[in-house]
Amino acid sequence: MTLRSGWCLLVLGCAAWAAPLPAAAQQPRDTGLVATYRATADRLIAAATADTAAWLRLAELTDRFGSRISGSESLERALDWILVEMRRDGLESVRGEPAMVPHWVRGSESLDLVEPRAARLPMLGLGRSVGTPPEGITAPVLVVHDTLELRARAAEARGKIVLWDAPYVSYGETVTYRWNGAIWAAQVGAVAALLRSVSPFEMRQPHTGTTHYDSSAAPIPFAAISIEDAAMLHRMQGRGQPVVVTLKMEAHMLPDVASKNVVAELRGSEKPDEVVVISGHLDSWDVGTGAMDDAGGFVAAWQALLVMKRLGLRPRRTVRLVGWTNEEYGTRGGLAYRDAHLADLGKHDLAIESDGGVFRPTGFGFTGSDSAFAVVRAIGPLLAPVGADTITKGGGGTDIGPIMQRGVPGMGLNDDGSRYFWYHHSDADTVDKLDAREVAKCVAAMAVMAYVVADLPQQLPRGGVPPAGE
Amino acid sequence: MTLRSGWCLLVLGCAAWAAPLPAAAQQPRDTGLVATYRATADRLIAAATADTAAWLRLAELTDRFGSRISGSESLERALDWILVEMRRDGLESVRGEPAMVPHWVRGSESLDLVEPRAARLPMLGLGRSVGTPPEGITAPVLVVHDTLELRARAAEARGKIVLWDAPYVSYGETVTYRWNGAIWAAQVGAVAALLRSVSPFEMRQPHTGTTHYDSSAAPIPFAAISIEDAAMLHRMQGRGQPVVVTLKMEAHMLPDVASKNVVAELRGSEKPDEVVVISGHLDSWDVGTGAMDDAGGFVAAWQALLVMKRLGLRPRRTVRLVGWTNEEYGTRGGLAYRDAHLADLGKHDLAIESDGGVFRPTGFGFTGSDSAFAVVRAIGPLLAPVGADTITKGGGGTDIGPIMQRGVPGMGLNDDGSRYFWYHHSDADTVDKLDAREVAKCVAAMAVMAYVVADLPQQLPRGGVPPAGE
Repeated sequence: MTLRSGWCLLVLGCAAWAAPLPAAAQQPRDTGLVATYRATADRLIAAATADTAAWLRLAELTDRFGSRISGSESLERALDWILVEMRRDGLESVRGEPAMVPHWVRGSESLDLVEPRAARLPMLGLGRSVGTPPEGITAPVLVVHDTLELRARAAEARGKIVLWDAPYVSYGETVTYRWNGAIWAAQVGAVAALLRSVSPFEMRQPHTGTTHYDSSAAPIPFAAISIEDAAMLHRMQGRGQPVVVTLKMEAHMLPDVASKNVVAELRGSEKPDEVVVISGHLDSWDVGTGAMDDAGGFVAAWQALLVMKRLGLRPRRTVRLVGWTNEEYGTRGGLAYRDAHLADLGKHDLAIESDGGVFRPTGFGFTGSDSAFAVVRAIGPLLAPVGADTITKGGGGTDIGPIMQRGVPGMGLNDDGSRYFWYHHSDADTVDKLDAREVAKCVAAMAVMAYVVADLPQQLPRGGVPPAGE
Repeated sequence: MTLRSGWCLLVLGCAAWAAPLPAAAQQPRDTGLVATYRATADRLIAAATADTAAWLRLAELTDRFGSRISGSESLERALDWILVEMRRDGLESVRGEPAMVPHWVRGSESLDLVEPRAARLPMLGLGRSVGTPPEGITAPVLVVHDTLELRARAAEARGKIVLWDAPYVSYGETVTYRWNGAIWAAQVGAVAALLRSVSPFEMRQPHTGTTHYDSSAAPIPFAAISIEDAAMLHRMQGRGQPVVVTLKMEAHMLPDVASKNVVAELRGSEKPDEVVVISGHLDSWDVGTGAMDDAGGFVAAWQALLVMKRLGLRPRRTVRLVGWTNEEYGTRGGLAYRDAHLADLGKHDLAIESDGGVFRPTGFGFTGSDSAFAVVRAIGPLLAPVGADTITKGGGGTDIGPIMQRGVPGMGLNDDGSRYFWYHHSDADTVDKLDAREVAKCVAAMAVMAYVVADLPQQLPRGGVPPAGE
């Protein structure tokens, strides 16, 4: 894994993508565009928000297949079912585009407090962690807040299990402990590591997510515990009580598995070989049902395409729906797409991803040239009826990252993420937290943005990057 | 179990105790009382809120012993430790008062969705439920909202597992399905029952609690599932999919176990045989650490007594601290206290219990004669500095219920319960959700109310009930 793709994984669903501009800078300038597309945008919005079809489809998808971790049968069954449904919807060019994906298996796992008292603690091994020997690892725990404290107490860490009790600041900042925590602990001789879950909210839920190893230290098992239990172990240590745990994890990697991105299109009326991608990812972690992360993002894109089709709208360019595989640990779907479409990335006008839950939409974050930003910003007012009219600089998504690196302008749907990290990567990521009306507004926002960009007379200007071919 | 003690169990921590009076009715009338006790009350409040001692003690208690279900070693160890600590505090007449308590053991348990797809669902057997055969019970599920729907579909229920998917209205209203759900399901031939957890908040947490059986039908196993999974199974049934689960529960009752209420006192200066009880219960369910339900209530009472002692205050009557055993399923602590103190219940001036979490206090709810209510209402203004000055009619607690039935005036601490049922009877009932400053205010409220009532020249008037002896 390169640093870049590591970074992509880490900012998953993170508001750090979108640095809002000062309000004055957000005034639309191209009122001609608004006049041209107002009626069509209103039709799209009316159709998208007329029913709860998107929520119902999301519920059916997540109820039918549950969680969908890369490498699992449930992911592949879900992808196959979606292909059938997309054909049944009458969408065009429905296909799977192959990608080999990594296959991490959690297996059985447990964490038992041994001293100062016996208790089983809720835990979740972190994605790509190695396992323990079958008898587990029993060792004293050293609780630290951060790297500074671990450095100061490095001499105490040898042979222990380091618990990172890092307070939640923001996902983007705090997740560094999940990403690097096993490496940092192993570097000072720890035999395993534990993590206070990266979440602002406590309900004794562990939150999983990907971690990694490098060549600086041997890989050690790494698991998340609840915020509550991290605080408790820290208090025990503070009272001078010895804290000893037994960690058992069967976690291991298996050989890569054949998977696919699922693709469907509404072919463009004038420039069918130019493309606007709308997308979300279909893999999830192996907990909850991955409704927010990110079946909801895909379903919003899917329904956005259907709304265009049902209204008989066909923009100049092709709108391509993509359901990505393997966002969570590998980005192999995004990388395979880039490799398969290298020759036509210059004809990718824009790639949109939704991967922050489908709560009340607020707008889009955009990464591309300043002149392209001026164009998409001018589309904002058309999204005012659903409150999604704030178009900011900076935005994208993990799966569209590989093609954005090759110059394709990228965009992420922004929404009210105030509760997203309550549920994120935990057993509580389920459809019931999503409001059907808000999901419908996300559909409307995706439909209007994708339709208008796909129908503009000119391709979005790319700045220094050549507009077609590479 | 009698209907009455069943009712006590059901209203545990329930705001239904306290029906607020119109604002005009709450004006204090006895300003002489306020003038007499203002300075002392202010000293108690200042001392109680000067530090975070109560929260720290609550954290230590719950960290040391974890959950404390009746019949468990952890409850008895916690009670023994408290006796040692109370002696170390220099409290008077420290003792355990014996009570035999029921002993329900959860054992291993699981719920697996078999059709339409395989998944393990989080669950918690309900207290006092019977278990399943070792191989479990595998049966189709019939999901119903309520008794009306089950009655209408009674013919379909035979041989099935009935799932009560009753929406949360209020704890007091909705808990009837937990209390009666196994009986009602068995009456129409169900082989087991499941319950949507009785909570207003969804984080895929099952919430346990006590249930019961009667002679109208054979006992069947009964377990709580998460709100999310209840909704999912309901959606599956709505789509016409067969829903089949395997429920395994080792739950069973063992013979009663010797336990105790823990008691300590501050002896009265003039009338030491007259008593004001301040209390909370020390048993919990076998999940979380029972910090809100109800170690926090006991610790608030404990610290209230300590604050009086440390200030050198000694009211005319004795203030008696009681930590009850077995509130959750049996009220055996409260019943044993009643039986042991039958001869002196007439000298019990007032019994106060806190059992609704120790969040921001708002006041007290009182059950007793109108003339006694006028007196305790007049104490309200003294509690204004901690916001606990709303004294309402109706209130008490499960453990003081048996002596209230014998005429002892009863009172419950009221607090901001807006999140109490998020955590209640679940793994998330832990100390970290409680704010140390709010807990300290609960201590202050308990201290002032108990001190003033214990120091009043006259015993609280009992209406029709004789004031001393029975």
